[in-house]
Amino acid sequence: PACYLRKMGFRDCLRSCFLGFFEYETPKVMVVKNRTLGVIYRGVHLLVTTYFIWYVFISQKAYQESETRPESSVYTKMKGTALLGDMVQDMVEYVRPSEGGDVISTILRREVTHDQQQGVCAEHYSVPKANCTSDSDCKAGEVNFDGNGPGTGRCIPYYNHTFKTCEIKSWCPIEEFAAVRESALVEAINFTVFIKNTIHFPKFKVLRGNIKPNKARYLGRCTYNEVTDPYCPIFRLGYIAEQAREKFSELCRTGGVIGVFINWKCDFDIDPSNCVPTYAFRRLDLRKNLPSSGYNYRFAKYYRRNGKEFRTLIKAFGIRLDVIVHGHAGKFSIIPTIINMVTALTSVGICSVICDWILLTFIDKNEVYSERKFDEVSEESPPPTLTEFTLTSYGSTHSDLSEGVAL
Amino acid sequence: PACYLRKMGFRDCLRSCFLGFFEYETPKVMVVKNRTLGVIYRGVHLLVTTYFIWYVFISQKAYQESETRPESSVYTKMKGTALLGDMVQDMVEYVRPSEGGDVISTILRREVTHDQQQGVCAEHYSVPKANCTSDSDCKAGEVNFDGNGPGTGRCIPYYNHTFKTCEIKSWCPIEEFAAVRESALVEAINFTVFIKNTIHFPKFKVLRGNIKPNKARYLGRCTYNEVTDPYCPIFRLGYIAEQAREKFSELCRTGGVIGVFINWKCDFDIDPSNCVPTYAFRRLDLRKNLPSSGYNYRFAKYYRRNGKEFRTLIKAFGIRLDVIVHGHAGKFSIIPTIINMVTALTSVGICSVICDWILLTFIDKNEVYSERKFDEVSEESPPPTLTEFTLTSYGSTHSDLSEGVAL
Amino acid sequence: PACYLRKMGFRDCLRSCFLGFFEYETPKVMVVKNRTLGVIYRGVHLLVTTYFIWYVFISQKAYQESETRPESSVYTKMKGTALLGDMVQDMVEYVRPSEGGDVISTILRREVTHDQQQGVCAEHYSVPKANCTSDSDCKAGEVNFDGNGPGTGRCIPYYNHTFKTCEIKSWCPIEEFAAVRESALVEAINFTVFIKNTIHFPKFKVLRGNIKPNKARYLGRCTYNEVTDPYCPIFRLGYIAEQAREKFSELCRTGGVIGVFINWKCDFDIDPSNCVPTYAFRRLDLRKNLPSSGYNYRFAKYYRRNGKEFRTLIKAFGIRLDVIVHGHAGKFSIIPTIINMVTALTSVGICSVICDWILLTFIDKNEVYSERKFDEVSEESPPPTLTEFTLTSYGSTHSDLSEGVAL
Repeated sequence: PACYLRKMGFRDCLRSCFLGFFEYETPKVMVVKNRTLGVIYRGVHLLVTTYFIWYVFISQKAYQESETRPESSVYTKMKGTALLGDMVQDMVEYVRPSEGGDVISTILRREVTHDQQQGVCAEHYSVPKANCTSDSDCKAGEVNFDGNGPGTGRCIPYYNHTFKTCEIKSWCPIEEFAAVRESALVEAINFTVFIKNTIHFPKFKVLRGNIKPNKARYLGRCTYNEVTDPYCPIFRLGYIAEQAREKFSELCRTGGVIGVFINWKCDFDIDPSNCVPTYAFRRLDLRKNLPSSGYNYRFAKYYRRNGKEFRTLIKAFGIRLDVIVHGHAGKFSIIPTIINMVTALTSVGICSVICDWILLTFIDKNEVYSERKFDEVSEESPPPTLTEFTLTSYGSTHSDLSEGVAL
Repeated sequence: PACYLRKMGFRDCLRSCFLGFFEYETPKVMVVKNRTLGVIYRGVHLLVTTYFIWYVFISQKAYQESETRPESSVYTKMKGTALLGDMVQDMVEYVRPSEGGDVISTILRREVTHDQQQGVCAEHYSVPKANCTSDSDCKAGEVNFDGNGPGTGRCIPYYNHTFKTCEIKSWCPIEEFAAVRESALVEAINFTVFIKNTIHFPKFKVLRGNIKPNKARYLGRCTYNEVTDPYCPIFRLGYIAEQAREKFSELCRTGGVIGVFINWKCDFDIDPSNCVPTYAFRRLDLRKNLPSSGYNYRFAKYYRRNGKEFRTLIKAFGIRLDVIVHGHAGKFSIIPTIINMVTALTSVGICSVICDWILLTFIDKNEVYSERKFDEVSEESPPPTLTEFTLTSYGSTHSDLSEGVAL
Repeated sequence: PACYLRKMGFRDCLRSCFLGFFEYETPKVMVVKNRTLGVIYRGVHLLVTTYFIWYVFISQKAYQESETRPESSVYTKMKGTALLGDMVQDMVEYVRPSEGGDVISTILRREVTHDQQQGVCAEHYSVPKANCTSDSDCKAGEVNFDGNGPGTGRCIPYYNHTFKTCEIKSWCPIEEFAAVRESALVEAINFTVFIKNTIHFPKFKVLRGNIKPNKARYLGRCTYNEVTDPYCPIFRLGYIAEQAREKFSELCRTGGVIGVFINWKCDFDIDPSNCVPTYAFRRLDLRKNLPSSGYNYRFAKYYRRNGKEFRTLIKAFGIRLDVIVHGHAGKFSIIPTIINMVTALTSVGICSVICDWILLTFIDKNEVYSERKFDEVSEESPPPTLTEFTLTSYGSTHSDLSEGVAL
């Protein structure tokens, strides 16, 4: 504490500090008996209080410390068989990748190019500069970015057609010509995907899963339904598409990426067992009316015939499910509670600012208020009045105490 | 500033504003010489200060600006060979997917169904309604969801058994009948997984990796050990299982998903080279006593024999490692420091609230305090006292200044 | 409100509470006419105000509520063909995994081991303890961790060389001996990757994509260029490498992991259509001068020849692209605005603390200020002065009101 050593001795100084410990300071206050102002003051008061009690504490749960990035693990598995042509297709054929992570795609339609092999064949006519009448039209070794391979320089008949295109080195026959467009796997609408999600809140040491214990037999039969089977994380593809507001037939045609959102909103002030997830589904890729919508990819199966490598090229259209987990957990904690209480009380100060301004600007007619509120002092101030004589060397000690109050 | 233009001329007004610039306002304070109150006041004071200095600044490092979502890159690679039956299995056989991302699974046990091909065969007897005595029991074309394919309508002997089941179109023979259960790859306990993790804090422009430079040779030999080899991110599967408190033999049987947590907690006020990760392991899928625990998936290898497609169906049980990276970095920054200082000082105001309440409610016996603290003013107030005469037209200018103080 | 029931009757009490409603309290203030102090006060004032207006509100947009973790969906597709030796390689050969998720890798160089099959062959000479002169040097069944399989116990010539190594059970021939190192696919520098990213801010219900509508034809041709084609998310591998400040030839040799950062910084106070992403590229794995840098992985193609399983083992070096999406959106909201305003006004209080301290410590020569600022009261205080007589039983009611002010 500032105790003017230069003026009083060291002992006085210590004494002042010591005595300062048994003093308390509180600002002097002017009470304005004014109806309008009182009402305004109370009004603002009420507003602030309501905001904090209702919004901050009740709706925002400011008394809780929260955890928003839990550790999550997703395991997916599809099930279902369907007849395509006279081939039976099970999930081993239709699900990629097979490992069952948080991204899983099922093939709904295929365009298959059988028995491709390295060789030379005619470029597709749609490729720029592919059409030709004589070899002179085709440059050898030229790679056309939109084409399927480098030209050989020869101009040959386009497969069994009359017109000619440049010959290219490529996997032959080229996909555009030889691809067989299979029919869509409409039965897939009944395929099911099992999504197991386990979530862990490290801060609160709580582990939760979206499967109820002792339900092994139940899981064998059920499919998810918000109302009847909320604890059965087995979803029909048809249900998912419907929830995402997409036509399944449309998805079969173009394919699409659908987000499966698992939302955990947990309040650990009540029993954790009440913490159950909700599911939401939304199409993630751009809408149909936008370009390059849909979802498709290519892969190949490789095999050999007497030493030569062949491949079956498959262009797959399907649904990709991206499982996205959101988690939020809250639990009462003393620290945030105090902090928000303080903030609340502090914010009340705002009332004074507003009312002071109103008081001194509009109400203070004949300046009676400001005269009483403000006490002007300059170096050459009038002699201290009676009461102030009580002020002695201690005066100085107030300097530091005042800080607390000034706030 | 509010300077009653209506009352004083414009020049006076300007003058008042100008003069107001060389004035300072500080609240008038009543000093209560009361032991109890003083102690209480100091007490609360101390509490608040301690909280801020110790908790907020020292333990929470509130003087730092922090970054909690760094950019992370994970690259994983497994190593090890083992003898299964008389076949040697290396990682190419056992690790899927092969690309070495942040999710990697190793196969510990397989159930292999050799040489499946499209055809007709007997449905498994466990499938509902599969058992039959005559063709009349089997509906043609009916797809049973739990079954392996659509029925042909015929009732045939169940492979080389005496009883009969309905014939189905499917990949034959069906897995349930023909699957060969291989023994577990127990040697896998000594397989190692190399987890390279690089992390980047954009805000602080710091790039860190979990490998020490110039350690190429070292990495060739070491395996991770918290104590002896903290800088060797090569983990024995056995070590991982043990850390996750799981029996490896158990994992071989059911499979499981284990989270590998890499935690970076960095304080860039000290040398970044001190910022090294810690590793933690925890099983992520639900516990053994819960249903559908474990981890398994199916995939197939395809090949052809004289034009006909065959597949080898493999049901794989194994460990899936999900590498999850958490990062938190902090560095001194002036902004948060100031903000928290202000908050701290502000919070001290809470002391006054409490003490004022105590003062005026409990201590203020004969209302001597409130009489001195509060100065009541109504429109018809007594004539201003001597000292207040010094207040002139400037009085008004205080209106705005007072705001700062009122807070 | 505390109304000393013990002293006044219940009716008085109610009355006091009621009247308290039409009163307003404002702290009494001492005005110090001191140039220095005034200037200091204004200075601090200015600083605080500037900080809040400029930094908090303008640069930090504190008046907005923000969303930092949008839902994002990434779909990637590569394109391009190149001649390797006399084989034409298209993306089906070179891209893994094929599903087109947010992690996609393209193979730039391969080391191929053809026609491996289960059998016995000589261990590589580099493996510790592999070299031998007689069978006695080789332990049967011993698995060397760095080796390719368990020993048979025999010592055989190392393929067509003169020296001998231990024989092992393995996929033969072993990779180290038989791998064929193919030349790098330098044309890959012109391959393109199409990165479609859709982003959704649930809080603001805004869905955005990185493709402009009605641009299907445009997308067929364009490649990304920050200046000329910012809306074309098709990137040349060469461009990516260059942006990541990596030599493409170097990447072909060692491979590498490159992060593709898509940053969405959206202000929904203006038209959402202005919310477009920026792209950044940075190498994510450790730098070249560090050990085990680069990116490579092994996979195999399986086939059969008269009943026997063969595999072609491929060690692939390439570029792995990790697409990482950051999103931040802000929109005006009344709550954060108010909160920050209050904080701002509150922080101004800090000025008083500083100035009070200066005032009472340095300027207050003859203690005239402290004498006027502080009014000391002890139990045995002088008789109340005239003005204070007006204070009656209501005095008590101020106790609670004062709280608001004290802050």
